[in-house]
Amino acid sequence: MANAESVRLQVFSLNCWGIRYLSKHCSQRYAMLGDMLYKKEHDIVLLQEVWSEKDYLSLKQKLASCHPHSHYFKSGVIGSGLAVFSKHRIHDTFLYRYSLNGYPYMAHHGDWFGGKAVGMAVLSIGSLIANIYVTHLHAEYCRDKDPYLPHRVVQAWELQQFIRHTSAGADLVILGGDLNMHPQDLGNRLLRTSTGLRDSYLETAKFDGCEDGMTLIADNPFISKNEILPFEKGLRIDYILYKGSPKVNIYCDYMCTTKGSVPDHPFPYSDHEALTAELRLETHTPSEAQSDKKLWKHDSAAGKVAELVDIMTEARTEVKVGLHCAERMRYTATRTGVMGLALLFLELAIAAVPYLALGAEQPFPLTSFYMLAGLCFAILLTTFLLYIFKTMELKSLQGAEDQMRLAIGSLQEKLRGFPLAQPHSTQRRPPEGLEPSAFDPEE
Amino acid sequence: MANAESVRLQVFSLNCWGIRYLSKHCSQRYAMLGDMLYKKEHDIVLLQEVWSEKDYLSLKQKLASCHPHSHYFKSGVIGSGLAVFSKHRIHDTFLYRYSLNGYPYMAHHGDWFGGKAVGMAVLSIGSLIANIYVTHLHAEYCRDKDPYLPHRVVQAWELQQFIRHTSAGADLVILGGDLNMHPQDLGNRLLRTSTGLRDSYLETAKFDGCEDGMTLIADNPFISKNEILPFEKGLRIDYILYKGSPKVNIYCDYMCTTKGSVPDHPFPYSDHEALTAELRLETHTPSEAQSDKKLWKHDSAAGKVAELVDIMTEARTEVKVGLHCAERMRYTATRTGVMGLALLFLELAIAAVPYLALGAEQPFPLTSFYMLAGLCFAILLTTFLLYIFKTMELKSLQGAEDQMRLAIGSLQEKLRGFPLAQPHSTQRRPPEGLEPSAFDPEE
Repeated sequence: MANAESVRLQVFSLNCWGIRYLSKHCSQRYAMLGDMLYKKEHDIVLLQEVWSEKDYLSLKQKLASCHPHSHYFKSGVIGSGLAVFSKHRIHDTFLYRYSLNGYPYMAHHGDWFGGKAVGMAVLSIGSLIANIYVTHLHAEYCRDKDPYLPHRVVQAWELQQFIRHTSAGADLVILGGDLNMHPQDLGNRLLRTSTGLRDSYLETAKFDGCEDGMTLIADNPFISKNEILPFEKGLRIDYILYKGSPKVNIYCDYMCTTKGSVPDHPFPYSDHEALTAELRLETHTPSEAQSDKKLWKHDSAAGKVAELVDIMTEARTEVKVGLHCAERMRYTATRTGVMGLALLFLELAIAAVPYLALGAEQPFPLTSFYMLAGLCFAILLTTFLLYIFKTMELKSLQGAEDQMRLAIGSLQEKLRGFPLAQPHSTQRRPPEGLEPSAFDPEE
Repeated sequence: MANAESVRLQVFSLNCWGIRYLSKHCSQRYAMLGDMLYKKEHDIVLLQEVWSEKDYLSLKQKLASCHPHSHYFKSGVIGSGLAVFSKHRIHDTFLYRYSLNGYPYMAHHGDWFGGKAVGMAVLSIGSLIANIYVTHLHAEYCRDKDPYLPHRVVQAWELQQFIRHTSAGADLVILGGDLNMHPQDLGNRLLRTSTGLRDSYLETAKFDGCEDGMTLIADNPFISKNEILPFEKGLRIDYILYKGSPKVNIYCDYMCTTKGSVPDHPFPYSDHEALTAELRLETHTPSEAQSDKKLWKHDSAAGKVAELVDIMTEARTEVKVGLHCAERMRYTATRTGVMGLALLFLELAIAAVPYLALGAEQPFPLTSFYMLAGLCFAILLTTFLLYIFKTMELKSLQGAEDQMRLAIGSLQEKLRGFPLAQPHSTQRRPPEGLEPSAFDPEE
């Protein structure tokens, strides 16, 4: 690669924990963050949980000179909370709202109101087209018994679909955000294997930060021990992922995280740790790249595809669990609704029969009558809304499962086309930046 | 193009009007449709308004031998109603649900429950990768005063975004469906100009069908005259659009529509007319294509970009109108909610004061008390739900407007980079199949 041109790119990602009036020291933390971003002048800043547009606008004003290009993605009732700031021109943006994102009646968890999504910004970095993605997946409130797991798996499925299908024309792809998934969690494996995205923490030549790259740590004063249980020290759930193209190789030279505090400040930027990755882009002539790619492609493709089929099958199973739960809930809602209706009829009958038959005065105590009628209407309305919501949830889960089944079938078909013996299938490593997705069409 | 290889592709599209028990002769029409599709063996069949999965499954069974590959897209409460049948293998599918799609409280219009979306299927046709899209946009119930216009414009905006961003890796793109927009409607112009998609009705060498390519006609026995007012003969709102790539040129050799009846049958397939387009794909070597493309690109790009800026500005204005209406509705909901709350407090005060002050018996008639309390609760609940829904609508409208503003800015920047004089800018026609989108990045 003697002719390769090299470009450096600093990418920053942080879940800002920006709930006005509820998150501790919210405005002070935004001020600290703004100062730091102004000083450090990263090329690309990816923020999550910027729940108030006012905070985005004040950051935008502060960073106008160093990050003249920015976009705030809007979704849901108070979201999406996603924002991008960039030194490089943003040509175009696009937002994909996940079809599943928790439940509105779980208001104390709030995820549904955030309208979780993945935002995309198309940047030009010199002559290169970069697709930058920022996302925030549904939180995990209880690892042992996580009712949101099927939703998060569907979100990861839709995220990989979105990235795979929208990045074909890009020279490089960067995804930053709070995935709310541990490195080896199903959704994370699905995302990385199907898109070919690489984890900057695993790829970096040099790392400075929390142990094991953790981004939610016990040492952070905003974190209570209970939040990270059963893990003592913390979790790694925030990521900067990247991949190149036949035209560009990407290397991660350095990566760092904050460590639960900020020097000369009384508290950290957020309850999450901030991530910074220093990427080096090496552009080269397509002909060089093509030959590199071909060299590798026939060597490990079968292994990748087989791995992806396994992961997808696992994901499908998880979606089926979600389907089962949603069906049960919808059945319960239907039954309760029918009982509410029966109760209403019964009440009306009890009230009407003596009145009609005997012409006597109403014997039913009025207070009880109205209270009971009110209760019946409340039951009917609640179960009706629940039924509608659960039907929509079922449709989305079924839709994801259908898509997974089709994709698995297609990949299995592809596998049948590979020669039987693949002795080096997963041993040889592709040249950096050329990690293809297992979905790449064969030619 | 002496070396060009030629492939023929028959594409069929129909809005099936498939509401079980409500649409007239629904099951008989599906049977007729299945027989015809089995006989005609189109390469790709794109259906809309297949509201029941059972109908999809019975079609799938009937067409198993001629269309072994199919997919049904699920969305919303009863939707999305979109289905694809194909002779060629479907490798992968993806669904984008529009962020705006009417109102749940407009239940008699039903669009919200359909979860309108655009479905994508990635097919391999020989060595070519084809991205096939099927969609159905929000209906237009009153052309003069259309309250859904901003929603449909945002749907058209999201549709063009989705197609543009997901089709970079495709050799050819086909979109079929019921756009619920006339040929010169804002959303239609936006879609065609930004994606470079071509209308098969306008491009076809030979046409056989209704006057002006109409697809909703007065001669169809399922159509009442009122539905198509103020147009006497009918409207053209269903389309098959296509575009090629540097590798493939597409020509439409023949196009036809049904004409309101089906020979030897008592009624037509649907209230919409069915469309069939015969496309010819000519693949050639990339080098040939590249030079063709370059030749054309510098010639008409500025004109295209300027046109797109105008259309987007128009779309932005329409979205702003929608924003204004949604804001007003949200304000009304808030005010009504506050009044409901005040009424409840007033009632409680009237009931409580004499009781507390005088220790006397309750003077408030019990029936009125409970009726009024019930009314207050109903007002509070309704306005609360409306407030939440309107806030989400506002977020989506604002999001679309932000994206449009950014895209317009970026295109204007691009325009500034063009040489001032562009005398031939819109006169010269590009070679078939090479219609680029005005968004194509400059290189």
